[in-house]
Amino acid sequence: MIAKNNEKIVSTLRIAVDAMGGDFGPKTTIPAVIKQALDYPDVKYIVYGHREHCQVDTMPANIVFDHVDHHITMNDVPTHALRYGRTSSMAMALRAVKEGRADACITAGNTGALVALARHILGMYSSIDKPALCKIMPTRLGRSYMLDLGATINCSAEQLIQFARLGLALYLRDNTNIKKLPSVRLLNIGSEHFKGMDVIRHAADALQKMNSLDYQGYIEGDEIYRGIADIIVCDGFVGNIALKSSEGAARFMLEGIQAALNTYADIGNNDQDQYILKALTQWHDQCDPARYNGAQLLGVKGLVIKSHGGVSQHAFSQSLLMLIEQIQNQSNASFDELLSIA
Amino acid sequence: MIAKNNEKIVSTLRIAVDAMGGDFGPKTTIPAVIKQALDYPDVKYIVYGHREHCQVDTMPANIVFDHVDHHITMNDVPTHALRYGRTSSMAMALRAVKEGRADACITAGNTGALVALARHILGMYSSIDKPALCKIMPTRLGRSYMLDLGATINCSAEQLIQFARLGLALYLRDNTNIKKLPSVRLLNIGSEHFKGMDVIRHAADALQKMNSLDYQGYIEGDEIYRGIADIIVCDGFVGNIALKSSEGAARFMLEGIQAALNTYADIGNNDQDQYILKALTQWHDQCDPARYNGAQLLGVKGLVIKSHGGVSQHAFSQSLLMLIEQIQNQSNASFDELLSIA
Repeated sequence: MIAKNNEKIVSTLRIAVDAMGGDFGPKTTIPAVIKQALDYPDVKYIVYGHREHCQVDTMPANIVFDHVDHHITMNDVPTHALRYGRTSSMAMALRAVKEGRADACITAGNTGALVALARHILGMYSSIDKPALCKIMPTRLGRSYMLDLGATINCSAEQLIQFARLGLALYLRDNTNIKKLPSVRLLNIGSEHFKGMDVIRHAADALQKMNSLDYQGYIEGDEIYRGIADIIVCDGFVGNIALKSSEGAARFMLEGIQAALNTYADIGNNDQDQYILKALTQWHDQCDPARYNGAQLLGVKGLVIKSHGGVSQHAFSQSLLMLIEQIQNQSNASFDELLSIA
Repeated sequence: MIAKNNEKIVSTLRIAVDAMGGDFGPKTTIPAVIKQALDYPDVKYIVYGHREHCQVDTMPANIVFDHVDHHITMNDVPTHALRYGRTSSMAMALRAVKEGRADACITAGNTGALVALARHILGMYSSIDKPALCKIMPTRLGRSYMLDLGATINCSAEQLIQFARLGLALYLRDNTNIKKLPSVRLLNIGSEHFKGMDVIRHAADALQKMNSLDYQGYIEGDEIYRGIADIIVCDGFVGNIALKSSEGAARFMLEGIQAALNTYADIGNNDQDQYILKALTQWHDQCDPARYNGAQLLGVKGLVIKSHGGVSQHAFSQSLLMLIEQIQNQSNASFDELLSIA
């Protein structure tokens, strides 16, 4: 249990932050970390960034700022990051996890560079070939763990099966009180077995035979938010497109409701109007993609959170909060142990 | 100009309908066609279906019903459709176009079967290898033509370029008064040239050199609804997932607003409340995926509209309406001519 202001302290969590990542860098990450550091005074933050771009003098006592000269840009290719990025803010945050100085790290930086550096610095679990980004999706019925969302493209059937095992291990770590085998589905363009590509059919055949999970067939794009699977597995290219298309559609709709709310904000003066506007505002906030920002990079040996690149301060705060809540509620079994039974 | 009730008649449009297609078949297609036939008395409908499942005795005079014994199910594989489906309702509707008895055909049936039968019955344009499903997407700024949405998977770079040409020809047919070259983007998981897969980079290189269009680079999933491209090109697997994920997210959000509207429907008694509810209902209807139902199968020699398989009566009506409006507004140049300059 990690204490928010005045709550009982049970353990101390240490989070390494790459302050330079994302389209807006320290402008969004630093205020977000400061806010979270004030809200959770018992969480320790090690923040890696360039001192000229970060408000170093205004940081709370539970933030340790570590100056680094270099950072990875959003345009750097993974090979460039591996060759020249080993002293970057992103690499330093990963190294803090590797060396046991932090329990987790977080970045809004370049996904390709993160995947390359995380593999290099943290290493992979021996039964996993390539990493996967996993996000907890809100659905009509509870939550679904969806992966991969962009770490690995052109996956083989074997890699899709490994992703299912990674998703399963994370699901088991987060959900300690389950009554039945977690359900797994493969994202596809139809529900019939013959649909889609060979790799998906081969993965389906193999998942069908696994005893650690309940394979329930394919899931189509329009069913992602129905809550019909605990774990949704897909190639990283496809998963990234699915996630971002959903976010784009959600934003497009939120703009409409925002315009409606703005129109009526002035005239809504009686109690009933206020009640309607409040309900709509709540609904708006619940649907906001920023609320669900943050994916975990699975397969590497360490807790790595990837925040959206085009992230706002609010959204980066949300991914920090998600990380804290996740660790707060997770089982005592290590990811490693859970992966070995998945 | 096609006349709605009492308007001036300029031409007569003939639409062939596969009444048996879709998850709900004649239960949704027949009431939809009857409604459209009453709304547009000068449009002629040739409806192919099994007489026992269709309300044959209640049809308006501008519907000709043609009984067929067989139909394609949603589970039939394309090879089965080709071998045994040549006398199905879907094949008969396509044949009506081929033989000049209809100007267009529409089905909510099995996509794989439709692609196989349409290629076989109508034939392909000589410069196009495989068909693509193209849909007109609503965006913040006007509309974007997006293809392929599920007709062809595992596309080569050359096929993606052909899809760009098909989208361009359709765009030119629908938009007669354009002032600048239509803009084209490729759907990808990042904006930098090195992102994604080889086929996409190769397609980008080739599109860059084309004079018939203005290639503007990649577009990410969350930008689909921003209106930053006239034409969005992608592989059919990816496009299908993008479209359906968006629809799923939209439905998930609409359920929330619907619940809010239901809660306040009773208490909204004063004029101002009614005004807010009316505005929200309009916004709800505008965002409803059913409103944008219907994609055109391009590459085959004939006008073929694919309606969503899990379609409601309202959504099937919308795709019929879209077809009528599209033909009403299109240029006199044939698709064939436009494709030759694309």
